[in-house]
Amino acid sequence: MPKPPHIHGLILAGGRGTRFWPRSRQKRAKQVLKFFGERSLIQQTVDRLKTLIPGERIWIITNGHLRPEILSQLPEVPPGQVLAEPVGRNTAPAIGLAAQILEEVDPGSLMGVFPADQLVARPARYVRLLRPAFRAAAQGNIAVLGMPPLWPETGFGYIEFPSRVKPGLLEALPVKNFREKPDLKTAKKFVSAGRFCWNAGMFFFRNSVYLHALREYLPHTATLLASLPSFSSPEFSARLKETFPLCENISVDYAVMEKAKNVVGVAADDVGWSDVGTWNALWELGARKPADNVTRGDFLPIDSSGNYVDAPGKLVALVGVHNLVVVDTEDALLIADRTQSQRVGEVVKLLEKQNRGGLL
Amino acid sequence: MPKPPHIHGLILAGGRGTRFWPRSRQKRAKQVLKFFGERSLIQQTVDRLKTLIPGERIWIITNGHLRPEILSQLPEVPPGQVLAEPVGRNTAPAIGLAAQILEEVDPGSLMGVFPADQLVARPARYVRLLRPAFRAAAQGNIAVLGMPPLWPETGFGYIEFPSRVKPGLLEALPVKNFREKPDLKTAKKFVSAGRFCWNAGMFFFRNSVYLHALREYLPHTATLLASLPSFSSPEFSARLKETFPLCENISVDYAVMEKAKNVVGVAADDVGWSDVGTWNALWELGARKPADNVTRGDFLPIDSSGNYVDAPGKLVALVGVHNLVVVDTEDALLIADRTQSQRVGEVVKLLEKQNRGGLL
Repeated sequence: MPKPPHIHGLILAGGRGTRFWPRSRQKRAKQVLKFFGERSLIQQTVDRLKTLIPGERIWIITNGHLRPEILSQLPEVPPGQVLAEPVGRNTAPAIGLAAQILEEVDPGSLMGVFPADQLVARPARYVRLLRPAFRAAAQGNIAVLGMPPLWPETGFGYIEFPSRVKPGLLEALPVKNFREKPDLKTAKKFVSAGRFCWNAGMFFFRNSVYLHALREYLPHTATLLASLPSFSSPEFSARLKETFPLCENISVDYAVMEKAKNVVGVAADDVGWSDVGTWNALWELGARKPADNVTRGDFLPIDSSGNYVDAPGKLVALVGVHNLVVVDTEDALLIADRTQSQRVGEVVKLLEKQNRGGLL
Repeated sequence: MPKPPHIHGLILAGGRGTRFWPRSRQKRAKQVLKFFGERSLIQQTVDRLKTLIPGERIWIITNGHLRPEILSQLPEVPPGQVLAEPVGRNTAPAIGLAAQILEEVDPGSLMGVFPADQLVARPARYVRLLRPAFRAAAQGNIAVLGMPPLWPETGFGYIEFPSRVKPGLLEALPVKNFREKPDLKTAKKFVSAGRFCWNAGMFFFRNSVYLHALREYLPHTATLLASLPSFSSPEFSARLKETFPLCENISVDYAVMEKAKNVVGVAADDVGWSDVGTWNALWELGARKPADNVTRGDFLPIDSSGNYVDAPGKLVALVGVHNLVVVDTEDALLIADRTQSQRVGEVVKLLEKQNRGGLL
């Protein structure tokens, strides 16, 4: 009997999370910030995979700005497995690079892909879902984890199953379609139909299967990656710097998942998953009656409610204000209408235009 | 012909201005803060009196917390003339103390009383008004400066003249009544009647006249002050510490002005006077179309208007917020609805209750 294939975890940690400015910066992006207790989002990601994937089989793709911080936060991951992309090229090439390296160092192995910046409130419940996903991957499928849609979110893509699915079934079922971010009307239909899940960006496959799909659906990038020397060769890093920028800038969803024929999905039950997309998401995760103020540190509210306040090291007094996001750092202070917190990225864009490097 | 009497200026600088927290603290109250350019409100007060009253005839009553800062801001005022009240007893005893000292060191002299924490946008125009006030004082009257009421303010007392007055007449006219802070309906009547002025807290008299009034209307305090030894004696300071706390805690308006028979008033024209009562007043003084954001320092507004921002040394980014007061200091951050900025004092009261000495 052949040994079961090794399982590796690839954590995608190249994002900037500009919507968490001014807390997030190039060198301390969302995934390395400690919004909840003492562990950052990327540390929590590694923590919850631990029972299934030990640190020595975790791989991380990030960028040069973040790599030092990630190395120091994750001593259990071998430094040689924390790779810095020369430039960001979205998820399809990044996953392709990792798959190619893994197929070289551990032929026949499986990979699970996990974003570094998500929150899972019930990790044990979550890990149950990974086993059927890897089982399906071992059988040659590309598996995806779908989250039960809790509201008609227009910021996510959706996974469409051919018929109504039972959340938490712990079985991979054929996926009919990947659907791009819908408008609100469509999202409402998706939610009420009962056979759509949020696409949470977690994928599972044999590395050889992904590389095959890449050759079929993204041949230019596949050829470029195939031209790289051995991962163990001394010139790998220099060649990657030349080659990677030439890859297409495209997500795995568009490049592969929407086209592949062998896609299956595991429909999760409610594991307390959140993509923690904006300051408002942090407020929602923390809000409690009566006044629904969510705050870290010293806080004095007078007739104020629904506010999210993150200002360590100083007293924050609020008088008659509601539904604000207040984030204070040494060199920048953000005050936003909480319901408009998705617009915080605009601040970062303006700062980039003004060449305000120190604040990025 | 007898020499004309000397004119002295008494600047009342004992207030805390808690509504300017967190910028104002016990050791740097409103009157020593630089809200406008490089000169604090008390420095501006001395500056605008200069043409009429030189520094060596300026007297200041403040408290022990503020005295060091005032001494350093006003080198032109002799340190021996910057007095610290042992405790705050409102304006009637403080003015009585100064009048008694002045009657001792410069018998027959006049005093003008000026709050330390007001703003006058047109100082030259303002100084014109002082001459008729001092002239009336030299004739034995108690004179008061009235400001033309620009809106039905309920936070000020009013001066009632017997008939319609011409603002900027430069002549002292008999005053019919001092009116306490009115309700809004009454304030509206006052404004439309045309014979009411705001009481701006500036008074003019012979020191002997004030002391006489004090003996008549506040005999307990008058007797206590009269019991003090000579201002030049070494025991003056120790005896003041024992005696002053026993004085009545009462304003000059209630104790003297409402009762005295010889009160006259000079009705000012618009000299750009403001008592700078709240953060909102600072916003009003600075607001300009289109977005009406008033800000000191580095500022990045997105779809935000009507805000007052005081956060030196850092970038403040606003997203979709309106009519806020934002004041950032090293150890405290205030965010208030601008229209509720009179409630900022409540924060200080709560901090006092909680014994948060460092933040007061």
